[in-house]
This record gives sequence, structure tokens and C-alpha cells, in this order.
Amino acid sequence: MQLHPDVGALGFLIGTWRGTGTGVYPTISPFEYTEEITFTPGPNKPFLAYTQRTWRAGTDEALHSESGYLRGFGSERVELVIAQPTGIVEVHTGVLAATRLTFNGVAITTPAARQVSATEREIIVTGDRLDYRLAMEAVGQPLQHHLAATLTRVEG
Amino acid sequence: MQLHPDVGALGFLIGTWRGTGTGVYPTISPFEYTEEITFTPGPNKPFLAYTQRTWRAGTDEALHSESGYLRGFGSERVELVIAQPTGIVEVHTGVLAATRLTFNGVAITTPAARQVSATEREIIVTGDRLDYRLAMEAVGQPLQHHLAATLTRVEG
Repeated sequence: MQLHPDVGALGFLIGTWRGTGTGVYPTISPFEYTEEITFTPGPNKPFLAYTQRTWRAGTDEALHSESGYLRGFGSERVELVIAQPTGIVEVHTGVLAATRLTFNGVAITTPAARQVSATEREIIVTGDRLDYRLAMEAVGQPLQHHLAATLTRVEG
Repeated sequence: MQLHPDVGALGFLIGTWRGTGTGVYPTISPFEYTEEITFTPGPNKPFLAYTQRTWRAGTDEALHSESGYLRGFGSERVELVIAQPTGIVEVHTGVLAATRLTFNGVAITTPAARQVSATEREIIVTGDRLDYRLAMEAVGQPLQHHLAATLTRVEG
């Protein structure tokens, strides 16, 4: 598929990624998860569609999922929007440096959702390896590390 | 797939829907589009995943797309979260009455996005027919009608 020139520098993300991660936060017990992430180019549009799903490690019990879009501008600037079935949406501005992406975002939530107010995300791709980290400000806790995972490209 | 009891009353939405719609707004020329919408149950989770794509009528030129999640609570109350590749996210509270859903939502946007501050959405399903309407407050214009479409269930 033809990549829109505004996302030409983001092609290193395209594909399906699988791996494992660990989550921690002061209000919950630490947990391990398996994960699948996809980045798919739009039809000659200046974005990549993003989906993510996790399962409790060693089981087929679905945990988190989210979906959204990574917007490119043909420069080091990127934007990311995400919706989550837990009732949370996020709006990020980000910076691309080679194959490293860093995002600073605000979150708003539905009335019935657990309250999350901000996340910071970092994605580093090295060939077919993707590492990400996520810090979260939520439920009255200050911004702090929440998730880290390592995935391998399995398609794309 | 087993529907989570909190979305048991939303089963009438499940499937793939295709049809046509019309868009108007003071700042743009009226336009017609073809559309595909899907509602897919999560794996025994209290939500339906939602995706939407449109094309300029009579062509394969992709226009809008969005994705998100419809959250059920086993009552007439629902919530909806949406992300759009135009840099917009929406958070809605809604009400279910039989097979009619009405949503009132706020939107926030990335810095580079066209500014949208609110939408109201209505979905009415009659058997295998789905009608929706969307009103939007955006780019300095007051909340007003923007989109109307009629779709038919083609799968599910």
C-alpha cells in the first residue's frame, strides 16, 4: 500500500507485534500480560491505525484493549489519539527521533470510568523488536511508571 | 460468542452495516458518502467495539474513519468513546430506549486538528436497518445537524 508522505517516516512501525509486558501501580497488584499490537497504514491517508489487546499471561483471559490513530506531519512531530473500552480517551502530542517515539498526553473519561488524567508513552523500535513504556497519572496518584513490554514483529 | 450481561440489551447492534449518508455544515459544501459500520462484542467484556469508515459516494476515495467502544451497564445507561484520525476524541454518555440510542458527548482535539467541541448522536435500529444522525459543534459554529445516514445489516 502507498504510504502517505506525511507518515513515510513511520513505516518502521507497520505490522503486527506480539510479546509480553509487566504492569505495576500503587493501587493494584503487579501483573504480567501477553500482548498484540498492530499499526496499519490508512488508504493514502496521513495516519497509521493502531490497535492493541492484552491477555493475562499464560491464559486466554482478555485484559485491556485500545484503538486509535497515529498522525504524521512529514516532520519529527506526531500526534496520537486513543479510545479505550474502560471509558478513557487520550490525546497526545509526540516527537519522532529516528525509530523512537515519545508522547505526552491528556486523558478524559466517561462518568463511570476509573479516572485517568494523563499518560506518557515511549516506543522504541529496533528492527523487528518493539519496546514501550507507559507512565500514568490516575486515581489520585501522581504520574509514574505503569507498563513496560517487549514485542516482536510477527507480520508486516 | 457469549455476550456479557451488561451489553445483553445491545445485541441488536452487532454485525456489519453498509449504506449511504449525507453531510452538511455551514463551513463546507454538502457531500454524500457510502459507509460501513461494525459493532463487535468483546470477549465476554461489557462493551461492543465500534468501527466506521466512509468513502466519497460513487468512488473508492476514503473519507472519514473512526473507532471506539460502546459501554453497557445492564440498564438504559450507556457510554461511548471514540477516536478519529483527524485528531479528535469524543466521550459520550447515552441512553438506550428499546433499539434507539441517544448520545451527548464532548470532544477534545490534538493541537493540529480542526477544533470540535461537542457532538450529539442518535442511532435507531429497526430490524436490519440502522439510521443515525449526528449534530456537531465545531470551528466556532453552534451545535447543529451535520450527518444523516441509513445502513443495512449485511453480516452478523
